[in-house]
Amino acid sequence: MAFIEKTVSSETVYNGPIFDIVQYTVEAENGLAKRDVLQHNGAVIIIAIKDDGKIIMEKQFRKPFDAVLYELPAGKIDRGEDPETAALRELQEETGYKAGSIEHLMTYYPTCGYSTEILYIYVCRELEEGETNLDPGESVDVIEFGADELVDMVMKNEIKDSKAIIGVLYARQAGII
Amino acid sequence: MAFIEKTVSSETVYNGPIFDIVQYTVEAENGLAKRDVLQHNGAVIIIAIKDDGKIIMEKQFRKPFDAVLYELPAGKIDRGEDPETAALRELQEETGYKAGSIEHLMTYYPTCGYSTEILYIYVCRELEEGETNLDPGESVDVIEFGADELVDMVMKNEIKDSKAIIGVLYARQAGII
Repeated sequence: MAFIEKTVSSETVYNGPIFDIVQYTVEAENGLAKRDVLQHNGAVIIIAIKDDGKIIMEKQFRKPFDAVLYELPAGKIDRGEDPETAALRELQEETGYKAGSIEHLMTYYPTCGYSTEILYIYVCRELEEGETNLDPGESVDVIEFGADELVDMVMKNEIKDSKAIIGVLYARQAGII
Repeated sequence: MAFIEKTVSSETVYNGPIFDIVQYTVEAENGLAKRDVLQHNGAVIIIAIKDDGKIIMEKQFRKPFDAVLYELPAGKIDRGEDPETAALRELQEETGYKAGSIEHLMTYYPTCGYSTEILYIYVCRELEEGETNLDPGESVDVIEFGADELVDMVMKNEIKDSKAIIGVLYARQAGII
């Protein structure tokens, strides 16, 4: 049986704009141990499918890799906001599209070893074009791909972002795209 | 075109055992902005396939969720270590298996928005049983699943860990499992 660790104490060691870091002291199998945990409010990912089957993707500069990456539309959940509301809001803010239908696809933990972040993937359809409304300091290119082309880009490993890889492969395996 | 941000300055705001946090000041599209970046040395993930087709999985307590989760064998790359060496080492340490063959499958970024972590997935075969050698404070259950059963667990969203989801779905789509 995997050993269940009991928390002895905790201390917030960093407060930041996107996440905080809490250091826990736990009773591990062979004595006390420290566990650094990134506290994140969770985020949403949107597979937005147009009437012609095309899927909305984004290209965005990401500082950790100093590179522009292919991603699915996504964004942080505001404090107290439910994930579905966040998904509709982020899709509209980043791409301009308003969705007439939304459905939860799946949920995953990107880095379960050291982060509380939970990612909720939604499928949006019945899209209506509109104006984007980006956060200050945010810059996003919106592009469309066919489903087969996207699966191909994932399998050639040209797409490196976990959100896009899981969204595309899960939806393909489920027969949705 | 996605806006490329130029770094103006950086400051290490937290030093921890698993990761550090660096705060960058960048020139964003509409002025200066702060970018908190988690600095991680990268990790490896192993899809270890036995001669009978069974795949090695782990169950491990994870503090961020206070829960025992299903995962593929994985571990951090030591400083200066190459990923393939790390994969063979981690597989042996956590499961006891020595692999006679190893092949790189794909690479992904679990949280590209705020972390430098890169995950390298390897497929290992020709497995030979041996002794585990866990890190202090580490406790892992080793279990085997058939490939169809694993895909089923992923698609029922019973598996939440990004490593296991991407490893299983990518290998299935590639026809490896």
